[in-house]
Amino acid sequence: LADPPQPVPLEVVLVSPRNPLNIGAAARAMANFGFSSLSVAAPFAPHWREARSAVGAPDLLQKAKEFPSLVEAVADCTLILGTGTVTHRKPEQPIISLPALTPLVQREVDRGGHIALVFGPEKHGLTREDLSFCHQLVEIPTDPRQPSMNLGQAVAVCLYELATHVAPPAAVEAASTVRGQGLPVDSAHLNLLAEVIEKVTLSAHYSPYSMRDANRHDLRMLLRRLSLSQRDTRRILGFFRRILHRLKG
Amino acid sequence: LADPPQPVPLEVVLVSPRNPLNIGAAARAMANFGFSSLSVAAPFAPHWREARSAVGAPDLLQKAKEFPSLVEAVADCTLILGTGTVTHRKPEQPIISLPALTPLVQREVDRGGHIALVFGPEKHGLTREDLSFCHQLVEIPTDPRQPSMNLGQAVAVCLYELATHVAPPAAVEAASTVRGQGLPVDSAHLNLLAEVIEKVTLSAHYSPYSMRDANRHDLRMLLRRLSLSQRDTRRILGFFRRILHRLKG
Repeated sequence: LADPPQPVPLEVVLVSPRNPLNIGAAARAMANFGFSSLSVAAPFAPHWREARSAVGAPDLLQKAKEFPSLVEAVADCTLILGTGTVTHRKPEQPIISLPALTPLVQREVDRGGHIALVFGPEKHGLTREDLSFCHQLVEIPTDPRQPSMNLGQAVAVCLYELATHVAPPAAVEAASTVRGQGLPVDSAHLNLLAEVIEKVTLSAHYSPYSMRDANRHDLRMLLRRLSLSQRDTRRILGFFRRILHRLKG
Repeated sequence: LADPPQPVPLEVVLVSPRNPLNIGAAARAMANFGFSSLSVAAPFAPHWREARSAVGAPDLLQKAKEFPSLVEAVADCTLILGTGTVTHRKPEQPIISLPALTPLVQREVDRGGHIALVFGPEKHGLTREDLSFCHQLVEIPTDPRQPSMNLGQAVAVCLYELATHVAPPAAVEAASTVRGQGLPVDSAHLNLLAEVIEKVTLSAHYSPYSMRDANRHDLRMLLRRLSLSQRDTRRILGFFRRILHRLKG
């Protein structure tokens, strides 16, 4: 008999799930594979109520956290993984196939990070805006003739892969060695840094105001490609605050 | 982008599935992972009709084969894999954890075999009788606090694992080398052999008649542990037919 899988510090985030049966199925897959932390971003209130009150709904569904949008749901996460297929759009961030995901997640677990695995709404998946908060896009290798998976099944397959191949956080001594490289920074601090840098670009008249949204999007994704530590983020933040103060002075 | 998974000669068999949504989900997972051969054994007629006529039901659901029981559904299969958890019963056949299944399936693919992956009814899973036709019991490693998976999700997880790790049948030359060891025997011929051996044991007064059912069950499983080739099965069959003829003569 196989040992039961160990939990890893992972948050499952459902963005605007529509079908209560899918929400229930996602929660059940989490329980099957030993994950217990579920967040829901911008749920449709009646569907969400129905899913939570379903007979036999797992405990973790009762305890699920609710957020107005994805930004808040992943604020304290350090590695945010969007899921989906890229059949119909040009991806903007690195894509990793699910069977190759283990080393990335294991590194994040070992350096004390907190991982979010994000699933979009059933119909159209994660938006470009949602994905701009993701470090990577995880793709389940499916048949090109039928690439799009049912939400509950996609959650089950991803969690099976992670529960089977990712080891729990390393023991305290080992972890502190890895952590000497610097704890990974969370999404909220990256957003704060992006905000200050944006103010600097505006103050410095870096580009036309009409470019503001596009610049914000690109900056957000650039910061997520840098793999910053908490310490480095604080340093860079101080640097840009100083510049901002000077520009305004 | 990952290459699409290649198909392997695999039959998905659902035994008495109850929920049309689960049947649909199983079919969808098959399409997602590039499998197209579905069989249903002893389905509940109205649920099965409903599943097949559902809007957007994949093509493979329309083409699914229907059988009165598992025996007929797997008659031409050479490696029959039952799925389920063994929390509440003592297993009688070898158990293999899903992540370790690849080499077994790959060997069967390479030697020209035909694999059946069998899923039981939602409520109680495969019966002892069903399992006696299986060579191995495949277990998805789940949390002991919530071991039982939803049917559609279990199908998705198993097919993901096989589509990701099992290569398609080897090229003709390579395959014929492997096949020189003898093509694997299918379930129908094992059943025929078991029948003749049973007649011999009865003719020879091997054990009391009251043991007949138990002996039949044990013999069925014993024959499945032997990994017989077609040629060896024919030889053994001839041998026992001769004995039977002599005992009766």
